[in-house]
Amino acid sequence: MNGAEALVQTAVDAGLEVCFANPGTTEMPVVAALDSRPGMRAVLGLQENVATGAADGYGRMAGKPALTLLHLGPGFANGIANLHNARRARSGIINLIGEHATWHAQADAPLASDIESLARPVSAWVHRSAEAAGMAGAMAEAIATATRGSGQIATMILPHDLQLADSGGVAAPAAFSSRQSVAEARLAAAAGALAGEGALLFLGNAALSEAGLRAAGRIAQASGCGLMSQMSNARAERGAGLPSYAKIPYLPEMALEALAGTRVLVLAGALSPVAFFGWPGMPSSMVPEGTEVVTLALPDEDVVAALEGLADRLNAPAYQAPASEGRPEPPRGELTTEALCGAVAALQPEDAIVVNEAITSGWSYHKQSQGCPRFTELQITGGAIGCGPSLALGAAVACPERRVINLQADGSGLYTPQALWSQARERADVVTVICSNRRYNILQMELQRAGMNQPGPNAQRLTALDDPPVDWAQMAKGFGIQASAAHDADELVAALAEALARPGPTLIEAVIA
Amino acid sequence: MNGAEALVQTAVDAGLEVCFANPGTTEMPVVAALDSRPGMRAVLGLQENVATGAADGYGRMAGKPALTLLHLGPGFANGIANLHNARRARSGIINLIGEHATWHAQADAPLASDIESLARPVSAWVHRSAEAAGMAGAMAEAIATATRGSGQIATMILPHDLQLADSGGVAAPAAFSSRQSVAEARLAAAAGALAGEGALLFLGNAALSEAGLRAAGRIAQASGCGLMSQMSNARAERGAGLPSYAKIPYLPEMALEALAGTRVLVLAGALSPVAFFGWPGMPSSMVPEGTEVVTLALPDEDVVAALEGLADRLNAPAYQAPASEGRPEPPRGELTTEALCGAVAALQPEDAIVVNEAITSGWSYHKQSQGCPRFTELQITGGAIGCGPSLALGAAVACPERRVINLQADGSGLYTPQALWSQARERADVVTVICSNRRYNILQMELQRAGMNQPGPNAQRLTALDDPPVDWAQMAKGFGIQASAAHDADELVAALAEALARPGPTLIEAVIA
Repeated sequence: MNGAEALVQTAVDAGLEVCFANPGTTEMPVVAALDSRPGMRAVLGLQENVATGAADGYGRMAGKPALTLLHLGPGFANGIANLHNARRARSGIINLIGEHATWHAQADAPLASDIESLARPVSAWVHRSAEAAGMAGAMAEAIATATRGSGQIATMILPHDLQLADSGGVAAPAAFSSRQSVAEARLAAAAGALAGEGALLFLGNAALSEAGLRAAGRIAQASGCGLMSQMSNARAERGAGLPSYAKIPYLPEMALEALAGTRVLVLAGALSPVAFFGWPGMPSSMVPEGTEVVTLALPDEDVVAALEGLADRLNAPAYQAPASEGRPEPPRGELTTEALCGAVAALQPEDAIVVNEAITSGWSYHKQSQGCPRFTELQITGGAIGCGPSLALGAAVACPERRVINLQADGSGLYTPQALWSQARERADVVTVICSNRRYNILQMELQRAGMNQPGPNAQRLTALDDPPVDWAQMAKGFGIQASAAHDADELVAALAEALARPGPTLIEAVIA
Repeated sequence: MNGAEALVQTAVDAGLEVCFANPGTTEMPVVAALDSRPGMRAVLGLQENVATGAADGYGRMAGKPALTLLHLGPGFANGIANLHNARRARSGIINLIGEHATWHAQADAPLASDIESLARPVSAWVHRSAEAAGMAGAMAEAIATATRGSGQIATMILPHDLQLADSGGVAAPAAFSSRQSVAEARLAAAAGALAGEGALLFLGNAALSEAGLRAAGRIAQASGCGLMSQMSNARAERGAGLPSYAKIPYLPEMALEALAGTRVLVLAGALSPVAFFGWPGMPSSMVPEGTEVVTLALPDEDVVAALEGLADRLNAPAYQAPASEGRPEPPRGELTTEALCGAVAALQPEDAIVVNEAITSGWSYHKQSQGCPRFTELQITGGAIGCGPSLALGAAVACPERRVINLQADGSGLYTPQALWSQARERADVVTVICSNRRYNILQMELQRAGMNQPGPNAQRLTALDDPPVDWAQMAKGFGIQASAAHDADELVAALAEALARPGPTLIEAVIA
């Protein structure tokens, strides 16, 4: 058994099932091992950000890591942006990077580069194999690392000759890590903080799981505290039967207003909120002066148990869901961003997974979808735009029985549209709705906020996408998936209903009025 | 004048003219400065590898650096693969990366990351601005760095608040660097080495310029030595009137055979040849045992002057071009890879720029194009596939009066197809011919070389691109450019003739039989 086979077998033995890949020559022994050691499904991405973004989406939904298989430094580099998002999402991912043979390193061949320097910014653990016999053990350590806390990124650099060398066999069974539990003193402090007016439970990470939300709901009903979540959540359970919560706004002036008057912010799986950018005249921290911050549980701790323990400590009864406010009627007429979000909220099936990278076009979706049948929402977490289609692919691979809807900004969607091809290849049940405003709307907004009401020609050229307009339906058909364009709300509703009624991927360009 | 304005003005004053960009919020002051300090053309890429690849193509053709403008670590990361190619091409590029405001760094906001760690592997110089007053001076240093030798990559990290702060004005005029000249002793050693049979002048970099090749031709005619170039060249002048030369083959067994019997290899702008990968049983170095290696000029030295000095030392008369062997007739019938390359060679106009990233489909192009009217060829230099369409964009921006033809492998072309949109936006005179074999042919070849004649299902899924086949014409139309598919050589010739007869970008998918 060679090093590549021992490594793959160790992963299969631990229950890992999927490898999102774009391999090259230096990864061929691992490719061969994916067949000779059965149990792993290989999913090809045409560009590495598809592979890493899909691994992120898979990890968020499967609750266990995927492997990626990437080609040397440059291939890995293509996947860094979505690994950045995955790191912020606290997804578990194990990257396998083929490297030149040890004896060939001195040649500085064309593809040689400093892989460690590229990998460190997005990896909790970077390991370079020094011998074939160590590869299986390193995979066991990678699995422990990738499952620590909520999840982490482990990166393995695998010289080609060592992949091929005799390994001595598989390592001892690799175990998943578990979350660290929260000390009783923190529960007591949180319980004390919640006594009285003006308390807000600030939710992130596993606090937004079904169990976490039910416990948070108990706490809110018992203590009268408010519930708010981070702006962007890796995974949130939502819809009828679960407590609803506001999200902290993107713009700092709005975030500060939303938190104004808060006496105490109790952090449950979330970090203390900070501004997305350092805007002139605005603070870094979104916590108003005088607001106390109390940490119940850090994102990587066992926040669900902490919330349940806190609810028990408050003698809170079982969560009583209020009558559902219901979902919106399908919109008609002009295709505004509100109509676009409303169409999805009106039609999304029960148990849908909604990958929301709609950016400015999606700002009304949270409120409009509050009363939908139960669903799961995945958001962009690290600000590295373009992850949506790849997240959707990974979620569909993890949950083949669920329908995925990707509510996708057009500017962002143009970063890695190749994910559409993998959706077609994998017959993934993904419906993509492109929010087509043909501009980087958030940048045009930022120019206005900076006082540039008359952008010059270069500023216009760098923020407008209408010359030429991208014909998304044609582009998607080129990648092998069914597609159409909708120019009003009625067309969008009809196209969405049709797409949701049959299996496989579809794209609808919603051309915003 | 704020920091961003001082920096842009310094670049404009030095004669820099183009900024390939995909900015975000942290780059808005530079965007504003691109309008308030006129003289720089901003070209938008929908993904950062378009910007960096275009900067590479521009640098190779313009002979001076372009700027890129990229968004924090993740945006920069998206452009690393093509910067890797640019580094191997020795192109001069100046990357501007916006960074969070200095006072916001401690917040670890979502987009924060270790930019230096990401930048170092592809940069000769990484600089983080510590004050606005230093930005203009740093740009002057970046210009000196980027023009050193053949060219280098300089990366500037620009905190948002410092871009906006008062700078104190523009720096002293920034000067381009020049190449270091070669010592007489090396010319003498090379002259000695060339006396006798079995000498080969091994060409790279500026040795493949018109002046370099004419000098090499004089040397070959005077000494009887052979001429050979690196496998992949950043830029080579080619065609009728210039000396022809072989290229060292990709596969090590073929490279060793090509160099067998060589008494002495004289390096002119090329490094000693090494294997592209470390294949089992093959050496790292492609220099046969017993062959002596003599360095005339390193890639960053003044190789043209060295070649001319060597030719003079050999008392070589002016270069006498042999009668041109002419170009092939337009092919007919089946669309083989030979027919595909033959069609381009048969039709390419005089003074064309051919961006050749055809990989396995392009192996016959070098020989078939030997007798074409004068043209310039750009190749992939760092093995980070997918640069072709972006290189073509950059070359077209640098040379608006010349026709660009991108001979492009399909698997590689799927990495950054968004460059097609920028070609449309810029009305670039680029004709893209997709070599559509619907597989990663080089990997299927590597599987066979490794003895895997019956690849398993995962190996098949990771190397085949035919399920679904990409419909390139539809995809390209989606990006706003004219496109069609050709299924035999006659169709390809007709489509190519039509595309070359009118301005603007066109894509032709050549579906290989």
